[in-house]
Amino acid sequence: MDTAFAPRYYEENRHRILEDYFNLLKIPTVGAEERHLGDCARAAAWLKAWLRPLGFECEIFTPDEGLPVPVLFAERNTGAATTVLFYGHYDVQPPDPLELWETQPFMPTLKEDGRVYARGAQDDKGQFFSFLNGMRALIEQGGPLPNLKIVLEGEEENGSMALFNLLPKLAERLQADVLLVCDTAAAPEDRPAIVAGLRGVQHFTLELKGPDYDLHSGAHGGLAPNPAQGIAELVASLHRPDGGIAVEGFEDGVCPPSPEELKLAAEGEPSPEAYERETGVAPVGGEAGVSTVERGCFRPTIEVNGIHSGYAGAGSKTIIPSKAFAKISIRLVPDQSTRHVFECIERHVKAHCPKGMTASIAELHLGAPGFRLNVNAPIFHIAAEELRKLDGRGAVFHWEGASIPVVSELRRVSGGAPLLVGFGQEKDKIHSPNESFGLDQFRRGMTWATLILDALGR
Amino acid sequence: MDTAFAPRYYEENRHRILEDYFNLLKIPTVGAEERHLGDCARAAAWLKAWLRPLGFECEIFTPDEGLPVPVLFAERNTGAATTVLFYGHYDVQPPDPLELWETQPFMPTLKEDGRVYARGAQDDKGQFFSFLNGMRALIEQGGPLPNLKIVLEGEEENGSMALFNLLPKLAERLQADVLLVCDTAAAPEDRPAIVAGLRGVQHFTLELKGPDYDLHSGAHGGLAPNPAQGIAELVASLHRPDGGIAVEGFEDGVCPPSPEELKLAAEGEPSPEAYERETGVAPVGGEAGVSTVERGCFRPTIEVNGIHSGYAGAGSKTIIPSKAFAKISIRLVPDQSTRHVFECIERHVKAHCPKGMTASIAELHLGAPGFRLNVNAPIFHIAAEELRKLDGRGAVFHWEGASIPVVSELRRVSGGAPLLVGFGQEKDKIHSPNESFGLDQFRRGMTWATLILDALGR
Repeated sequence: MDTAFAPRYYEENRHRILEDYFNLLKIPTVGAEERHLGDCARAAAWLKAWLRPLGFECEIFTPDEGLPVPVLFAERNTGAATTVLFYGHYDVQPPDPLELWETQPFMPTLKEDGRVYARGAQDDKGQFFSFLNGMRALIEQGGPLPNLKIVLEGEEENGSMALFNLLPKLAERLQADVLLVCDTAAAPEDRPAIVAGLRGVQHFTLELKGPDYDLHSGAHGGLAPNPAQGIAELVASLHRPDGGIAVEGFEDGVCPPSPEELKLAAEGEPSPEAYERETGVAPVGGEAGVSTVERGCFRPTIEVNGIHSGYAGAGSKTIIPSKAFAKISIRLVPDQSTRHVFECIERHVKAHCPKGMTASIAELHLGAPGFRLNVNAPIFHIAAEELRKLDGRGAVFHWEGASIPVVSELRRVSGGAPLLVGFGQEKDKIHSPNESFGLDQFRRGMTWATLILDALGR
Repeated sequence: MDTAFAPRYYEENRHRILEDYFNLLKIPTVGAEERHLGDCARAAAWLKAWLRPLGFECEIFTPDEGLPVPVLFAERNTGAATTVLFYGHYDVQPPDPLELWETQPFMPTLKEDGRVYARGAQDDKGQFFSFLNGMRALIEQGGPLPNLKIVLEGEEENGSMALFNLLPKLAERLQADVLLVCDTAAAPEDRPAIVAGLRGVQHFTLELKGPDYDLHSGAHGGLAPNPAQGIAELVASLHRPDGGIAVEGFEDGVCPPSPEELKLAAEGEPSPEAYERETGVAPVGGEAGVSTVERGCFRPTIEVNGIHSGYAGAGSKTIIPSKAFAKISIRLVPDQSTRHVFECIERHVKAHCPKGMTASIAELHLGAPGFRLNVNAPIFHIAAEELRKLDGRGAVFHWEGASIPVVSELRRVSGGAPLLVGFGQEKDKIHSPNESFGLDQFRRGMTWATLILDALGR
């Protein structure tokens, strides 16, 4: 496959491609929020309508349990020898804090820097949709293609519950040789990266209850236990002073990286200086004395995504707040067990609950474990060859710190060899205000789709 | 003075009194918030208009520095031997969290329980205005009265900056024999209490800066320092595991209570069971092994009034937040120095700033020190005698854990002997949603005013 094919197709169909992309971005598919259920249903229907003219048979599954966020399954059987299962997610992170956005999060804006600004511009709408546009180019051209199966879900950012529940039922229809995902980052400076591992994820809300109502902090200071201070103590207790995890048993089963993995992973890492230029902080999080590659790729973490209690306005409000909570997520590595990790957390919370208050855990998603792949797998050889066509520097292997919780389960159920290649960059600011995706990255995603699907279809 | 005089006056003038009280409560005088400046000015003008027909010369001072929240000074000279300076504050705490109010905070509502629900219903509008209504009854009756001076300010809940700045200029006009305040609580079960001490207060906002923007907590977990976790660690570091204060030098100068003070203070304390029934928590805050009376009355505290960072919505948002802050207030006891205490805090914050982040202190109010009075002062004998008329149980002494920052300075400048008697109860829920004040408490405040002003005017 000629690497110029996709860019040419893009130029010839630019208007239509961007119109579709923008229309998809305009749907505020915050899968975690009940009030956006209708938007998720609209997005699933929109994607179905987009795929059907390309010869896909589509089915939308709306779960009976949990939030009814629909899952779209699409299939295009050409009798080829190879079957590819492509996974993506149309849901996005909540856009807040809204006041930090320079444009409206669901009003995609193409700026002069050649980047599209919107929530989901990259994660994952931009990434999976660039891939689907490359696929469309191939289909319209009429060349040989593998059998194609597509799963697009709407709860990736919130635990993928619907899809998890659906997998046993869909198992037979999901059988595939390769499991393709376009939801990860490239290496710094756009160098292609093949993901050789993902961390798992688990999240929950830690709640702390104190007085029945906010108390006057003068009259009650020194008497009433204070949940704002309590949540600080409880959250702080999760780590040791050296930054390591203090939860007993949490790291049971953690499998250290091999020397080969460590060496390969280091190739794709930004330098500490580049990291600080990009993010504004030195990479000094996590456990002291452990290398950045290990901390970013091969170690589990407990991250506080939010902590809230009491007054947040201007000046002062002298209260002992009644309640406090923290939003916590955990990244897991092989071979930690999600259930065991959560049991350790539960025990820790119980043991460290500050005096006079009640701690509880809500909104638990047990999540999925992490995985690491054999870097010598045949599919990686094919991918590396195609990626060298895309970029003369060739691909690096990357052990992603982030998670796509359902991928390990999809892998197990489908039997497909996972191939995760994406074109994200740190500057895309996914999960943050002013998320964006460069149209150059979008075109790379398209090109990658034409290269790999052509290679697997021959 | 007959204790039936004020209740009779109340019955005869009920409509007018409640209309005035409600009109005062309807003005949202949140002195700490700039957008309520106009409301504060309206309240000061309203109070001036209320006092002038009673023979007061009034002057409104609008400060040049800080927020221009006006201070009202009113004077009624009758050539009496004794001069009383009465202090109150028309500002109120912010009403949030609004969603927890059962009525509108600035739409006062008299419920069937005989209580008025509104922000400020008690603190301090209800308390000072009940006193002023008692005073009005006496003035209208035409009996002998002391010379009356009144200071009503609008920044008590936010450091009293305007009044502090004004005091040197007003010093001569403030000269008084007695400094009367009606902004404190009675003992449990409405038993009268004379305040023999107040804690001082100081407050500030602790800010922590991490990455330039919210980072993806999967990709960056273990690499980027996390301000949500950092603020938890920094806040937790302010206390020792036993609940004592961990800030070095903070307790320098703390003067322990005398055995007499301890004994008298214990008389006015609720039992631990009563405390828990009222508030929903056992009085187990503060330092382990120290008695509740000491912790509530004679020890300093560091209280977290708010802690905030990152995501607060439903489900999960997997970010490393860019920033975090905590709202912190400190209660001081004799003979701690406000400046020294703050220097200790500053040093502590610097020494405990979590790795890779920047800590800073904003919105600082150095505040005022605490004070304790001699329980054998002559004014207390007069007060005790009048309070025994009001309530056969007689008064207890109370060392208030709360603060009225400017009172110690007013005491110094005016030369008046402080006499702080109020009629608050825990159920009033001051500083909390659904603040209320019982009309029985309001009438007690009126009666107290007639008794003490009559006693001091004879």
